[in-house]
Amino acid sequence: MQQGAIGVFDSGVGGLTVVRALRALLPHETILYLGDTARVPYGTRSGDTVRRYSLEALRFLEVASRELDLRKRQASQPPEQSPPLPLKMVIIACNTATAYALSALRERCSIPVIGVIRSAVWKAMQLSKSRRVGIIGTAGTVRSGAYQSSIRSADPSAVVLAKACPLLVPLVEEGWLDHPVTDLTLATYLAEYKESSIDTLILGCTHYPLLRGAVDRYFGQSVALVDPSESVSQEATLLLQKRGWLASEGQEGELICFVTDTPHRFQQVAHRFLGGAPQRVEQVDLSQYVRGIGAQEANDHRI
Amino acid sequence: MQQGAIGVFDSGVGGLTVVRALRALLPHETILYLGDTARVPYGTRSGDTVRRYSLEALRFLEVASRELDLRKRQASQPPEQSPPLPLKMVIIACNTATAYALSALRERCSIPVIGVIRSAVWKAMQLSKSRRVGIIGTAGTVRSGAYQSSIRSADPSAVVLAKACPLLVPLVEEGWLDHPVTDLTLATYLAEYKESSIDTLILGCTHYPLLRGAVDRYFGQSVALVDPSESVSQEATLLLQKRGWLASEGQEGELICFVTDTPHRFQQVAHRFLGGAPQRVEQVDLSQYVRGIGAQEANDHRI
Repeated sequence: MQQGAIGVFDSGVGGLTVVRALRALLPHETILYLGDTARVPYGTRSGDTVRRYSLEALRFLEVASRELDLRKRQASQPPEQSPPLPLKMVIIACNTATAYALSALRERCSIPVIGVIRSAVWKAMQLSKSRRVGIIGTAGTVRSGAYQSSIRSADPSAVVLAKACPLLVPLVEEGWLDHPVTDLTLATYLAEYKESSIDTLILGCTHYPLLRGAVDRYFGQSVALVDPSESVSQEATLLLQKRGWLASEGQEGELICFVTDTPHRFQQVAHRFLGGAPQRVEQVDLSQYVRGIGAQEANDHRI
Repeated sequence: MQQGAIGVFDSGVGGLTVVRALRALLPHETILYLGDTARVPYGTRSGDTVRRYSLEALRFLEVASRELDLRKRQASQPPEQSPPLPLKMVIIACNTATAYALSALRERCSIPVIGVIRSAVWKAMQLSKSRRVGIIGTAGTVRSGAYQSSIRSADPSAVVLAKACPLLVPLVEEGWLDHPVTDLTLATYLAEYKESSIDTLILGCTHYPLLRGAVDRYFGQSVALVDPSESVSQEATLLLQKRGWLASEGQEGELICFVTDTPHRFQQVAHRFLGGAPQRVEQVDLSQYVRGIGAQEANDHRI
């Protein structure tokens, strides 16, 4: 048993699809969610920029969980009884950040860091019979080649098609989930996948699970869909079980959300992704944690 | 005559429509353009965040123009011959930043700062006969109410309709200018304007002038379109003429672009907005200028 929190971060609100799937499997865990809403979207940014933002997110989650842990100890427990590791796992909910920053975060961090790509690829490999797999994602995710190379290393004979679909996130955020514009946009993006007879499609962006219905309408359910929010939650559960780090069943799971822009718009659309309104949303300034990183690095050099 | 540069800033690449219109009217001016591509879009952010980003942009343009001025002096002119004001005007090309940050920038700055809203409203008032005017823009621009109140103070009897159209920027960036999805999206957004018989529509976002053709197709040219990039360039020209600050006709106009993310994607799409590829694009880190603002404020307190 391990009392620490699970940290989840994303470029914005979309990562709440991962939180939703996590809470379904792990209702007793405390989850700290950071949505970098002041700098969303990551999908159009360069790899360097996405890495820098992701390192700031990691640093923030470490500090926020320590503060939370401290408050909890002061409130209820004598210090010697609680374990010294307030953050026990980090999940990168954002596909683009997983593609560009997963290794960098693992280098900086002694706790497990998992991203959404590996488990989604594993699931796709389980589902696909024809070994013709399609991926849709942001420009950044597709350009990184992370999904493509992960599939090819799982099965070198697989045919992999990848397409950036930059209009799908704004369509989801506009709430046009069942709208003729969405159907026509999907038909434009996915025509080549129908021609190529893929049998499995990875929904490689946190927003896309909300378009499951529209994608099914287009393919007439001839294509199996992989939702990375579900597969990464299964991976996280297995990992915590294996290490014996699951939260006590007596503990009530808590979700605390942090955002970098004002919470207003996040709160407006969060229910669509989470399946209910988040209770606690706080605004934070990540530039404090940038300075933190700088100071730490300065200390490292001094030593 | 005034040798200083004109500073133009925008959340990303869209403000190049303003640069294009400026260069058509003022071919001898040196223009410094800042596109905050690492933090685009501004249209979904809160007013506070947009103001903070805009102040950083102003501070950056001041420093960049001083550095440019210094390099030019060192290269060619004895210091006493060149005037001491390296930045002579700032144009906020972004509608959202104009809506939220124009007054804040004017308070911080002794040179003229102009935004895209006032001149567009003035132009709309010239064109509209029925006094039924529509505005389309980002969520931020529409929510700010800046266009609406500006029209109402120009003519309290005018009927003003405003609509946020968040899908139009991604459609332009996807390059779907003449595409069935764009036509269907515009038909969805603009149906109420057709029903309300507006006779003038302000294209209240830097990207929208590229959709002139599609908007004209929808309205069948029964509606006059106002392009704020043209009206703000006319306003800038008149202001420089009036002050006697136009650049010498012997001087060759120069455009230097700065971006906050890697220049690659900016360079890829810039030609669509500018009508040609920008010659010089440099990446800058605005957080240096945040520290600059802090230091300046610390000094102010000390005095």
